[in-house]
Amino acid sequence: MTEIVKGASPITLINVFTVAPDKADQLVQLLDEATDKVMKHQPGFVSANIHRSFSGKHVANYAQWRSKEDFEAMQRNPECREHMMAAAGLAEKFEPELYAVASVHD
Amino acid sequence: MTEIVKGASPITLINVFTVAPDKADQLVQLLDEATDKVMKHQPGFVSANIHRSFSGKHVANYAQWRSKEDFEAMQRNPECREHMMAAAGLAEKFEPELYAVASVHD
Repeated sequence: MTEIVKGASPITLINVFTVAPDKADQLVQLLDEATDKVMKHQPGFVSANIHRSFSGKHVANYAQWRSKEDFEAMQRNPECREHMMAAAGLAEKFEPELYAVASVHD
Repeated sequence: MTEIVKGASPITLINVFTVAPDKADQLVQLLDEATDKVMKHQPGFVSANIHRSFSGKHVANYAQWRSKEDFEAMQRNPECREHMMAAAGLAEKFEPELYAVASVHD
């Protein structure tokens, strides 16, 4: 179970992939495998939460990392880059952005 | 605290707003107020989690609703529409999409 709490630690990556609907499931599977095999073993990994849109047109990764530095170190890791490029290759577009949680209403 | 768990209930709305960086804080405040005053009192509201990107170029609402029907009823409510249009008016672009949580890795 992933928890969302207010603040800038952990940082949040929201990466929205635009995808041909017949590739949505394949992209979900690729992100699952990359997370299990590689990403979650990197320093500072907190969580990855893979979302599939009901329309099939988008897949989103809502991920948490301990710090921006940990996230950037992951991005420089060749094994991680390989998996990120494979995910990007399945998508028409991907739009990653790093966020702080400004507020939580529940 | 918001929890992310695998499955299609609650459903997840991820709405990414593209915004001029000098309007990011204003949009966060508007979303906070709209959530407190109106959205969270609608049937089926579970959570809204407002994110501000470090770049200032994006604001994202990660929201959970009990069902798609509850979300659609909210969208038809005139008071809710008014707040959604005010948020849209501050943004250059907004891209809402409804998701199921395919997997949680933590």
